[in-house]
Amino acid sequence: MLHAVIMAGGSGTRFWPESRMHRPKQLLPITGGLPMLAETVNRLDPVVPPERIYVVTHREQLAGVRAACPQLRPENLLAEPSARNTAPCVGLAATVLHARDPEAVMAVLPADHAIAPVAEFQRSLHAGAEAAARHGTFVTFGIPPTFPATGYGYIRRAGQVGTYQGLECYAVDSFTEKPDRPRAEQFLREGVYFWNSGIFMWRVDTILSAIGSHMPALAAGLAQIHEALGTPDFESVLAAVYPQLPSVPVDVGIMEKVSGTVVLRTPYRWSDVGSWNALYEEVPRDEHGNAAVFPGGGLLLAEDATGVLAYSREPQVIAVLGLDDVVVVRTEDAILVAKRDRAEEVKMLVERLKSLGRTEV
Amino acid sequence: MLHAVIMAGGSGTRFWPESRMHRPKQLLPITGGLPMLAETVNRLDPVVPPERIYVVTHREQLAGVRAACPQLRPENLLAEPSARNTAPCVGLAATVLHARDPEAVMAVLPADHAIAPVAEFQRSLHAGAEAAARHGTFVTFGIPPTFPATGYGYIRRAGQVGTYQGLECYAVDSFTEKPDRPRAEQFLREGVYFWNSGIFMWRVDTILSAIGSHMPALAAGLAQIHEALGTPDFESVLAAVYPQLPSVPVDVGIMEKVSGTVVLRTPYRWSDVGSWNALYEEVPRDEHGNAAVFPGGGLLLAEDATGVLAYSREPQVIAVLGLDDVVVVRTEDAILVAKRDRAEEVKMLVERLKSLGRTEV
Repeated sequence: MLHAVIMAGGSGTRFWPESRMHRPKQLLPITGGLPMLAETVNRLDPVVPPERIYVVTHREQLAGVRAACPQLRPENLLAEPSARNTAPCVGLAATVLHARDPEAVMAVLPADHAIAPVAEFQRSLHAGAEAAARHGTFVTFGIPPTFPATGYGYIRRAGQVGTYQGLECYAVDSFTEKPDRPRAEQFLREGVYFWNSGIFMWRVDTILSAIGSHMPALAAGLAQIHEALGTPDFESVLAAVYPQLPSVPVDVGIMEKVSGTVVLRTPYRWSDVGSWNALYEEVPRDEHGNAAVFPGGGLLLAEDATGVLAYSREPQVIAVLGLDDVVVVRTEDAILVAKRDRAEEVKMLVERLKSLGRTEV
Repeated sequence: MLHAVIMAGGSGTRFWPESRMHRPKQLLPITGGLPMLAETVNRLDPVVPPERIYVVTHREQLAGVRAACPQLRPENLLAEPSARNTAPCVGLAATVLHARDPEAVMAVLPADHAIAPVAEFQRSLHAGAEAAARHGTFVTFGIPPTFPATGYGYIRRAGQVGTYQGLECYAVDSFTEKPDRPRAEQFLREGVYFWNSGIFMWRVDTILSAIGSHMPALAAGLAQIHEALGTPDFESVLAAVYPQLPSVPVDVGIMEKVSGTVVLRTPYRWSDVGSWNALYEEVPRDEHGNAAVFPGGGLLLAEDATGVLAYSREPQVIAVLGLDDVVVVRTEDAILVAKRDRAEEVKMLVERLKSLGRTEV
């Protein structure tokens, strides 16, 4: 049976002032519809219905997750006592899942990516489940790169091992962390690299056994958590054990060490929506290249302005006069106005706010 | 006795989104302190104390004027039933003033100009009163021009006729409406032109007699209003008569027609603060040329940004990243982001909002 585990632990500052410590990107309707996490849940249905969808999140964000996804079962929401990167997150989910369904196939997905169209995404889920069953191994999902991105990890493919639901499936040669610009250009030229979408699929017994082989400290911690499952001690054991688990990404701790991993060529448009500028690329624009994202209603008045992204959750008039390629974001207590190609630097602004003691914004 | 009449009838759209139909510039703390009208009142004190200060305003703005200047006497607030330009406004004030003090000297001042330093402004008031008494005529206040402004009227001076309080006083050769750019440059070169500050001084009997000579229709209307002064019919007479008065500027209807007018060379910095860009020139700036105007408190976070004007009445963080020479204005329901030298075009945005039926903003 296919289950999905959504990793919703991010606390991104790249969407300041809209994202805040207790209002991370995945809980915001950044793309103009529902909170990104809710969009991710809906995108899985009906291939993975809500009762088989799990969310791993920070304890502080649990209330926000419940509010964004009321259709999820309370026992399917797993609260991390602290952020320990993705290997412990995946291990915790696999431990819980294995106890409920030892034969479970588990898809792991980030909560805050933009993917369309939904039908193509769901086709890739079917393909992934077939590949996982056929190869008994780890399945990754590779995005054909369209530009020399330095912000993504890459997967180098080896020979083709099959075709599932019409999607090419390759053996994985190697994983590569975010490259610098010349290497990214080289990857693009070579034509055998995918972007690593951060979506994985595997049987729970396969991942748990790989954790046992390659991350024994994590396996030992998970064993303690496993013993406490369903007992009144669960919360206290989790609180004691989890913060001690090795803080390692699952790519690095497991995926790079196991053999036989495959990669499916995905048929959908994908973005990790890593900045306001990336969001601009994902949303509808008018004939002047202006995009208005007003989840609560609003009006963009652009006069001699092109390439504008305007965002506000509250109904607002945002007027832009005589400026091109800018991002204008309004929240209840802050405004960001940025040259669009500089929008990733809002992290610096957040640091400055912290250093000024303005942690409330 | 010196009295002051502040003309506060403007309904400017040039400070949208901060200025609105019922929240005109003169009632806003645009320069960062008090509402501009209150700044104008305070700037007169103690040369003209509050009990001798009159404000002529729109009926709809009376409550706002009272709130901005609680120290003014209710009977000193004159409400125009409709806007009829400055000649009727001056005539109404002179009529009321003459009934209270037939020997009154009357200074007329716009409500929404920026003037500093106060001591120099007050010196010019003393000088004006001396000149009015000595020459028995109209006194204007000329600003030495510093650039070929096309947005101001000009006063061409003739020979010097005196010096009052150390300020040169000249006969007026002629008044000129806003010139085009080549003429403005010519004026600057000739060196015998002042900007017309819109501040005047005269005895009430002198202006009333000039109105009788040069604007008989206005004089007739004022006579009706004069008869009703202090009677229960005053409001209804004013409501009936005022809207019929000729809508003419006092410069055009009177000043250009009388002889013997003098102009004092003012010793202060002056701006009519006619746009967000003009405001930028008036307010303190940091070493990057960034100006933050937060009458209610706030923070401008500028990163790789220069020449920024940020304005908000509510406490706010305004962050500007990678942009130069922009104006960012936030109100409760709208944001303006404009290239600073295009800020005067907000009038166009207001027209577009009107055409969209969004009269509330």
